[in-house]
Amino acid sequence: MPQNDGPPARFDVATAVRRVEGGGVVADLDPGWDVGESILNGGYLLAVIGRAAVLDSPHPHPVAVSASYLRATGPGPATLTVTPGPAGRTLAHASVVLAGDGGPSLAAQVTTATLGDADPVYSRPMPDVPPPEECLSARAGDQLGGHPVPAIGLRERVETRLDPATAGWAVGRPSGEPVMRAWVRLTDGSEPDPFALLLFADVLPPTSWSIGRMGWAPTVQLQVLVRALPAPGWCLVEASASEVAGGWLDEDYRVWDSTGRLVAQSRQLARLPR
Amino acid sequence: MPQNDGPPARFDVATAVRRVEGGGVVADLDPGWDVGESILNGGYLLAVIGRAAVLDSPHPHPVAVSASYLRATGPGPATLTVTPGPAGRTLAHASVVLAGDGGPSLAAQVTTATLGDADPVYSRPMPDVPPPEECLSARAGDQLGGHPVPAIGLRERVETRLDPATAGWAVGRPSGEPVMRAWVRLTDGSEPDPFALLLFADVLPPTSWSIGRMGWAPTVQLQVLVRALPAPGWCLVEASASEVAGGWLDEDYRVWDSTGRLVAQSRQLARLPR
Repeated sequence: MPQNDGPPARFDVATAVRRVEGGGVVADLDPGWDVGESILNGGYLLAVIGRAAVLDSPHPHPVAVSASYLRATGPGPATLTVTPGPAGRTLAHASVVLAGDGGPSLAAQVTTATLGDADPVYSRPMPDVPPPEECLSARAGDQLGGHPVPAIGLRERVETRLDPATAGWAVGRPSGEPVMRAWVRLTDGSEPDPFALLLFADVLPPTSWSIGRMGWAPTVQLQVLVRALPAPGWCLVEASASEVAGGWLDEDYRVWDSTGRLVAQSRQLARLPR
Repeated sequence: MPQNDGPPARFDVATAVRRVEGGGVVADLDPGWDVGESILNGGYLLAVIGRAAVLDSPHPHPVAVSASYLRATGPGPATLTVTPGPAGRTLAHASVVLAGDGGPSLAAQVTTATLGDADPVYSRPMPDVPPPEECLSARAGDQLGGHPVPAIGLRERVETRLDPATAGWAVGRPSGEPVMRAWVRLTDGSEPDPFALLLFADVLPPTSWSIGRMGWAPTVQLQVLVRALPAPGWCLVEASASEVAGGWLDEDYRVWDSTGRLVAQSRQLARLPR
């Protein structure tokens, strides 16, 4: 098992990939980004996938990443098989498969491009949420509704401030509406970038908690779109579900930066906790 | 070039796949499902991908399909390379690559499962739209705002009734809000199924038409979730964009069946028409 001694690795180090002789790409998946039971967060893994995809691309930014979560992924050495697709001046395509000890665990389609600073032609506004200092801290060890926040690595690595309006579940009064909002930033002090946005697009607890279905909701397939380079500071994340039925749940994320610009969106299909 | 004589093929025939000796899977892509310039509709292609994915799956229904559109796909013979992933009692994974004359043109991750008839635990309601007979017909040859509907194959194969509230663009008065709603059904008389839902999840004109940006918006990456088996009859489709910026556009679809049940969702990243 990998050791987790010393100060936690910065996000960019924890998601780093490197080429090895023979042309392969490898990563050391960091045990600090778990969601419990040594299972790594799906957004963290997408950031690793994104870094592998840009290695050989003419473009520096992942703008669309769709991944199937074939099985749970734990920490430790992983290999990334990158199959490049067509590449042009506007965008490039690649397929990326991440494999650990247990074989392939993530298979992804990645589109890379070069994000600019063009003003939006049309933009749906950001919801109105109190500033981070008026929201509920959900760091591991914090008390929420008289209970300590579970000591999962993800919640230690990502500072999370829950919008009180959507945090009824945290104080034992689920709202009945599967919506959650929170301000987030990396605890290591680094500013958001497109790779951090891949993380933020799957960073909140399942919205099914808001309808009283506590328990983890494993991601089956997740698509993230990165729409702009984020400004420094907190990002606001909103997750909501449209339909919960037959053991399935969708989760729709929108992520805005500190200037109120939409910087990422995601949608996932997940299994509903029993 | 493939010929398009005789009556148009039914949807199930036009999207059929078959095994060939040696273990491959092939399809004859039907020229009747184009969006102009012999380019086939992205949803039509996803239905072909979905049929290839269920061939070797223990499950009959595609429930999550994410595809990168590597290049435009025209009609004619195509091969489908299916790489199965883990398969269990609840769901199975596969990767599917579709290739035509010009090489691979679609690369997809597909999750298959067995959809049941469980009632939703939570469901966001369907928008209020006039019945199909009070909506605007957008069949090829129909007049919309004094102009004939373009004679693209897709609009002949899918009967499309536009909600007047979101069809200002069709009469020369774009609403300024990138939202479109329409009732749709297959012109061949067949009832919707999960494969038709893959088609319906990319069936409307670009929502950028509603903000006065006429022209096609090529899909870069599209994810469709199929949430339930649709009831017979019309489906209601709503497409909307959250952000239009820097030459990129997202499109978010929700599809309800004739009973008002959410049966599919999709999101795509597309290039904005100039």
